[in-house]
Amino acid sequence: MPSWVVLGPGDDAAVIRPVRGTFDVLTTDAQVEGVHFDRRFVPAGAIGHRALAVNLSDLAAMGASPRAALLSLALPATLEVAAFDRMLDGLLALAATHGVTLVGGNITHTPGPLMLDVTAIGAVRPRRLLTRTGARPGDEVYVTGTLGDAASGLQQLQEASRTGAAFPGGSGVERYLRPEPRVRAGMLLGRNRAASSCMDVSDGLADCVRQVAEASGVGITLDASAIPVTKDVRDWQERMGRDALEPALSGGDDYELFFTSRPAHRGRFRTVCQQLGDLPITRIGVVTRARDLLLKDEHGTRALPAGYEHFR
Amino acid sequence: MPSWVVLGPGDDAAVIRPVRGTFDVLTTDAQVEGVHFDRRFVPAGAIGHRALAVNLSDLAAMGASPRAALLSLALPATLEVAAFDRMLDGLLALAATHGVTLVGGNITHTPGPLMLDVTAIGAVRPRRLLTRTGARPGDEVYVTGTLGDAASGLQQLQEASRTGAAFPGGSGVERYLRPEPRVRAGMLLGRNRAASSCMDVSDGLADCVRQVAEASGVGITLDASAIPVTKDVRDWQERMGRDALEPALSGGDDYELFFTSRPAHRGRFRTVCQQLGDLPITRIGVVTRARDLLLKDEHGTRALPAGYEHFR
Repeated sequence: MPSWVVLGPGDDAAVIRPVRGTFDVLTTDAQVEGVHFDRRFVPAGAIGHRALAVNLSDLAAMGASPRAALLSLALPATLEVAAFDRMLDGLLALAATHGVTLVGGNITHTPGPLMLDVTAIGAVRPRRLLTRTGARPGDEVYVTGTLGDAASGLQQLQEASRTGAAFPGGSGVERYLRPEPRVRAGMLLGRNRAASSCMDVSDGLADCVRQVAEASGVGITLDASAIPVTKDVRDWQERMGRDALEPALSGGDDYELFFTSRPAHRGRFRTVCQQLGDLPITRIGVVTRARDLLLKDEHGTRALPAGYEHFR
Repeated sequence: MPSWVVLGPGDDAAVIRPVRGTFDVLTTDAQVEGVHFDRRFVPAGAIGHRALAVNLSDLAAMGASPRAALLSLALPATLEVAAFDRMLDGLLALAATHGVTLVGGNITHTPGPLMLDVTAIGAVRPRRLLTRTGARPGDEVYVTGTLGDAASGLQQLQEASRTGAAFPGGSGVERYLRPEPRVRAGMLLGRNRAASSCMDVSDGLADCVRQVAEASGVGITLDASAIPVTKDVRDWQERMGRDALEPALSGGDDYELFFTSRPAHRGRFRTVCQQLGDLPITRIGVVTRARDLLLKDEHGTRALPAGYEHFR
């Protein structure tokens, strides 16, 4: 245990020492079998990984440095000990990657589905905090990485599960099973004060556009041709006779960062890109005074599809 | 929202300002329908109350002052909106009593039972922190309030549910439905440095004895005649042909505080009792060097019954 963990698991509660001059950043997110994952095609290790990843992604979106996590588990009798161990290993491996300490938790049995509820705690200096509320007209809209991979990976897994085919590999499937929370990107955006607003892409790009625009009191126009979608995803969507942008706009589970940045801060933005290395960052739109949510493509400009909830 | 809540619900995570010079105390505890409560006889308001109470009780056992909570809910389709509202009202009423702010959370639907997972965050000054590890031979063993009330209240509710009788009232039932976490007692014990160890009585007295003795590397001998059990509980147990001490030793859900105190610190202890007012504190045993867990009664001294898990 690191020195700032005063008391880890084993007492009535965990005790940690806050980082001087920082705020505590707190988030909780649950993964329920049959809602957020399907044990028939999500391996136990990936279940554990995802349960922590979705929370670290929330901390990343605040510009916070992750520190500790609490794990609350509801275990059905059907969960084997070996699967339990792999689940925990998956979670702990991701925790180790990001220097996160599991300081406590709770285990109960349940007559219902497997459920993992993680609370993650991070630290952020006041001036580095990222929120959803700071987007202003004229800001540029960006997203890290590529979008739609996880949703198309999930579709491939579901398809294989339905047809009895061998489970596919590939980057989309891997992105769905083991999303990489953009912890470093979030911290660099905060540290360099390069983003005017930020949110993680958990429920699709359209949802981000709607949430950030609403929280900031602005509109956003996306450039369809700029949205970063891999050839794999485009090919898969074409094969299934669907629009190439659908998983990016309305799919979930990408856990990239969506953010806005002032044109005047392009120097800061370039610093982030340099420090970040390989992870691409793509400009996909612009913040507008008129509070419309629009998608511009070669046919013209239309209202942005309603998003994730709509498509399910 | 109080001024130390930098960001409440609505962003990717909640942000709070730690109290200068304190540790963060963090705990999470889940309540699962069919495991921790039965919706047939636990009203929705009490479900919400209990979900927070069990966590505040954990903070109390650390000597911490509660500050904030996160609520993660898994809702089955069968939960009506009115019941949801009453559940939340029950939680928020208890939060208001203890000055706790609900800063965030998560809601998901579930194909399984209703589940409420609360994470509570408190603050404690380093020298006021209470743990399970500080009991030393010669320390006196104490408990707040009375024990076995909640377990006998639950038995009465179960009995009424089985027989179709009207649901009973009474203090045991009320204690089960709306336990009062001993937040003030825990804070006073910490502030006055009056306890050498502390734990909340969530799974019965025998469990506390075992846990604190193990964590501290000591033994404990309880005086059966001193264990505070109300006449109501004794009468109920007698009517059911059971031992009067069983619900105290092996029942759960009392949420009193179990603690040890050095004889040399009796002055501090008296200060706590004076400041605490009405809540009785009873001396029920002694800490021993020999690592045995014993119960002394008029027939002699015997091994302490194994506790909660054993009886279920």
